[in-house]
Amino acid sequence: MPAPAEFIKFIDSNADAFIQRLSDAVAIPSISGDASHRQDVFKMAEWLNAHLKAVGVDTQLVDLGKHTMDGEELPLPPAILGRIGDDKDKKTVLIYGHFDVQPANKSDGWDTDPFALTILPDGKLVGRGSSDDKGPILGWLNVLQYHFQSNKPLPVNLRLCFEGMEESGSEGLDELVEKESKKGGYFDGVECVCISDNYWLNTRTPALTYGLRGLTYFKLTVSGPARDLHSGVFGRTVHEPMTDLIHLMGRLVDVQGKILIPGVEEMVDVAGDEERAIYESLDYTTADIEQSAGAPIALSANKVDVLMGRMRYPSLSLHGIEGAFSGVGAKTVIPAKVSGKFSIRLVPPQTPDAVDPMVISYIEKEFAKLKSKNKLTIENLHGGKPWVADVNHWNFEAAKKATKEIYHQNPDLTREGGSIPVTLTFAESLGVNVLLLPMGRGDDGAHSTNEKLDRANFIEGSKLLGTYLYEIAAIAK
Amino acid sequence: MPAPAEFIKFIDSNADAFIQRLSDAVAIPSISGDASHRQDVFKMAEWLNAHLKAVGVDTQLVDLGKHTMDGEELPLPPAILGRIGDDKDKKTVLIYGHFDVQPANKSDGWDTDPFALTILPDGKLVGRGSSDDKGPILGWLNVLQYHFQSNKPLPVNLRLCFEGMEESGSEGLDELVEKESKKGGYFDGVECVCISDNYWLNTRTPALTYGLRGLTYFKLTVSGPARDLHSGVFGRTVHEPMTDLIHLMGRLVDVQGKILIPGVEEMVDVAGDEERAIYESLDYTTADIEQSAGAPIALSANKVDVLMGRMRYPSLSLHGIEGAFSGVGAKTVIPAKVSGKFSIRLVPPQTPDAVDPMVISYIEKEFAKLKSKNKLTIENLHGGKPWVADVNHWNFEAAKKATKEIYHQNPDLTREGGSIPVTLTFAESLGVNVLLLPMGRGDDGAHSTNEKLDRANFIEGSKLLGTYLYEIAAIAK
Ligand SMILES: [Zn+2]
Ligand SMILES: [Zn+2]
Ligand SMILES: [Zn+2]
Ligand SMILES: [Zn+2]
Repeated sequence: MPAPAEFIKFIDSNADAFIQRLSDAVAIPSISGDASHRQDVFKMAEWLNAHLKAVGVDTQLVDLGKHTMDGEELPLPPAILGRIGDDKDKKTVLIYGHFDVQPANKSDGWDTDPFALTILPDGKLVGRGSSDDKGPILGWLNVLQYHFQSNKPLPVNLRLCFEGMEESGSEGLDELVEKESKKGGYFDGVECVCISDNYWLNTRTPALTYGLRGLTYFKLTVSGPARDLHSGVFGRTVHEPMTDLIHLMGRLVDVQGKILIPGVEEMVDVAGDEERAIYESLDYTTADIEQSAGAPIALSANKVDVLMGRMRYPSLSLHGIEGAFSGVGAKTVIPAKVSGKFSIRLVPPQTPDAVDPMVISYIEKEFAKLKSKNKLTIENLHGGKPWVADVNHWNFEAAKKATKEIYHQNPDLTREGGSIPVTLTFAESLGVNVLLLPMGRGDDGAHSTNEKLDRANFIEGSKLLGTYLYEIAAIAK
Repeated sequence: MPAPAEFIKFIDSNADAFIQRLSDAVAIPSISGDASHRQDVFKMAEWLNAHLKAVGVDTQLVDLGKHTMDGEELPLPPAILGRIGDDKDKKTVLIYGHFDVQPANKSDGWDTDPFALTILPDGKLVGRGSSDDKGPILGWLNVLQYHFQSNKPLPVNLRLCFEGMEESGSEGLDELVEKESKKGGYFDGVECVCISDNYWLNTRTPALTYGLRGLTYFKLTVSGPARDLHSGVFGRTVHEPMTDLIHLMGRLVDVQGKILIPGVEEMVDVAGDEERAIYESLDYTTADIEQSAGAPIALSANKVDVLMGRMRYPSLSLHGIEGAFSGVGAKTVIPAKVSGKFSIRLVPPQTPDAVDPMVISYIEKEFAKLKSKNKLTIENLHGGKPWVADVNHWNFEAAKKATKEIYHQNPDLTREGGSIPVTLTFAESLGVNVLLLPMGRGDDGAHSTNEKLDRANFIEGSKLLGTYLYEIAAIAK
C-alpha cells in the first residue's frame, strides 16, 4: 500500500516551508555537551514539543533529573514522549530521534555560521544538526503535518520518543525506556521501532541498517617513578613506564587490523561465500572509503574485505596516551605514569562480558613477560553490546518496499561500525524488531565541520518515512 | 698549596652576609624561558655586573642580539665577560656560570615562595636558582670578595664568562665563545676551564665530573587520513597511523633499556673489570637511585650496572606522542597524524653524525616491513655530542687536592647522564681541559619544585672554589 498521492504532492509543494522550519530548528544551538548551552537544549525541547502539539500529537515532557558534567550539576533536558492513535486494528510503531547536537564553532573550520542553515546552490542544507538529527525529526513532523492538515488518520498508531542528550551519552534515557516498555507503560503495545539517526553507506543508494558494533574501551596504566624524571639523569637506570606501555600497546593489534588478543577474533565465525555475496552487492567501492578517509589507505583493495572490516568483524584502535609528553617541541622527560587508551568494536556473539576478561588476562600475562618493576592497572572505561536485527522481519520488508517506491531502487542492507546504544535498549526492553532507516548520505559529516543534509534527502526522506508507515500498515505480520 | 687560613676564616665569618646576598640574587626572577620575565634577566645581569665590579673585576656586557621565542622577538640578555690579572707567571683559568633560572610558580607545588630564599632549620636554602646556578656564581663572588677586601692578589689570572640564557638553549653563546677563544680574543691564553653547574652524585660525597652524555632527539611522524576518523566507522578498514607508530616505537628499545637499533650499542665498548672498579668505588647504592626516582624500579640490583647505565652507556627514552588523544576520558578517535618523540643519550665515540643515519635507516626499514599505506617522516629535532675529559689532567688533580682539603675525602669521579652543551663548546673552542666542579648535592632538585642548596654546600663550596685556584697555581703543568 503506497502512501496517498496527495501526501507525496503535499511534501513536494511544502518543501520550502519545511526547509524554513529546519532552519528554525538549526538556529537553536542545542549542544548537550556544553554546559553553557544547556538552556538551548531546553529551548529546543519546548520548540519541538510545540510543533508536535500543533500537528496533533499528544505529548508529555519527562523530567530526567540532574547530572554532573565537567564538575557542574546540571538539569537534564526533558525527553519528549508522544502518542497518536490507539486503534486496536492498527500496528503500533515507535519512532525515536534526538534534538540535541554536537558542538560547533565557526572557528573549527566551518565555511558558514553552523547555526544558520545555509542553502547551497547544489541543494546542500549546511548547518549543525541538519542531518544529525534534526532533519530526520522534522521529516516525521512533515509526515504528521500532512495528516493533521488534511484530517487523514495515520495508517498506524504512533509512539514518539525524542531525547536531548544523545550526543552526551543519552543520560537518563535507558531507565525511561525500560520503565515505559513494561506492561502498562507508555510504550506498551509497540510492535516495531524505527530510528532515523544514521546514514547511507554512500551518496547514491538508500540504505536500511540492521547491525551495529558494540564497544569495550580500556585504559591501560603503567606507573613507576614518583614523579616525571629527566632522561639524562635516569635514562637506562630505571624501568621506564612509556617503554613498557608501548610494548604492551604494540601487542594488541597488528598493522593489518588483526586483533592479537587470544580468543577475541576466534569468537567470530568467518563469512562464507553466501554472506560475502551480500557485501558484494552493496553499492560501494574501496574508492568510497578512501575518499571519505581522504587518503588511499584502505587495508584491502577488495571491497568485501573493507566492508566486512567495518560491519562484520571486530576492530581494535589505539586512541592515544594520557600522561606522556604530547606537546609540540622536544622535551626530554621520562613520564612517571602513562595511560594507553584503546577500544575494541565488538560484533555478535562478542559482548563486553565475554571479551573483557580475555583482554585483561592477556595484558596481564604480557606485562608479566616484560619483567618490569613498574605497576600496571587496567580499567574498563565503558562498553556496550553489538546489535543485529533480522532483515527479513516485516518491519524491514515494509521499509524495503517504501524505499523502492520513493527511490526506485533496492536499499543497501548495511551494518554500521559504530554504536547507537539506544538501539539495543529498545530491542532488549521491548523485545521487538528495530529498524534503522537513515535519511542522510554517507558524506553528511554528522560530527564534523560543514555538516549538511541534501535537500533531496530531506524531501524524499520525508516521503520515505510516511510511505514506510503505510507499508507497515499493509504488510502481513 | 692550600688557600690561606685567612681566606677560610673570611668565608666562615661572612657566611650570613653571603646567604643574604644569595637571597638578593634569588629575589630577581630571571627566568630566561618566560618572555614576561625577560627584563628580570637583564636586571639580574646588571646586579651581577655591579657586584663583580665591586670586587675588582674588569667586566664588559656583550650584547648578543635578538631572538624569537614563542613567536615574539626579544632582546637577548647580555653575556658578562670578566677579567682579573694578566700575570705571565700565573696560570689563566676560565670560569663559567649562568644567572638565569628555570620557571617556578608557587602553584607548581613549592612549599614557599620560590623567589624568596627560605632558610630551613636544617640549613637548606630553598629558592629557585639557589643551586642552579646562582649559588655557584655567588661562590666565586665570595672568593673574589676576600681577595679584594684583603688586598691579596689572586693566585691565578681569571677570566669569567656568565650568561643569562642557559636554561633556554644558551642562545648566542656558542658564537661568542668561539670568537673569543681565537687568538687575540677575550679568552686567549686560557689554560683550563672550571664550570660549577652540576651536582654531586649523592648527598654525602663531593664529586668532580669528567663526562656528559650527548643527545639526539627524533620526531617520528606517521600520517594517513586527511582528518581524524571515527573508530566505529573506520576501524579495520584503513591503516591506522597510531598502530603503525606504536609498532615502530616498540622496536626502538627493549624493556631492559637495550637499544634495538643495529649499530648503536655496538659503537660503545663493554666496560672491563678495571673500569667497573671505578664505578664500584663511587659512594652510591641502587637505593640512592630508587630514592631519587621515588620507587623501587632500578633496572638492576647491581650498582655498577645502574651507574654505567647513566654515565657510560647510551640510553633511549620514549617521551610521548603528539597528535594522539592525550586527554582524560574515553575518546574513540583514530588520529590522522601522530608523532612519536624519542631521544638517545650518546656516549663516546657516538655522535649525532654517526648515529642519526643508523636510526633513520632502521626506522625506514622497519616501516617498510609493516607494508602500511600511511606515510612516514623522520625529523631530527636537535642533537649534541657527548664529552669526556682526562681525569688525570692537572686541572682535575688540583680539584682533587682542593676537595680533599675542604671535605677531607676523595671526590667521586662522575660522568653525568645529561648534557651541558657549553662544556663541549669550551672544550672544542679552547682545546683545553674542562672540569665540572659541582657545589650542590644530588637532591637539590635543580629544575624541580623546592630547589635548594644546603648552607654547608654554599659555604664549604665557596672555600672549595677558592682552594681550587690555589691548587691550580701550585700544581705542575
Ligand atoms: Zn545522531
Ligand atoms: Zn550524533
Ligand atoms: Zn644550570
Ligand atoms: Zn638548569
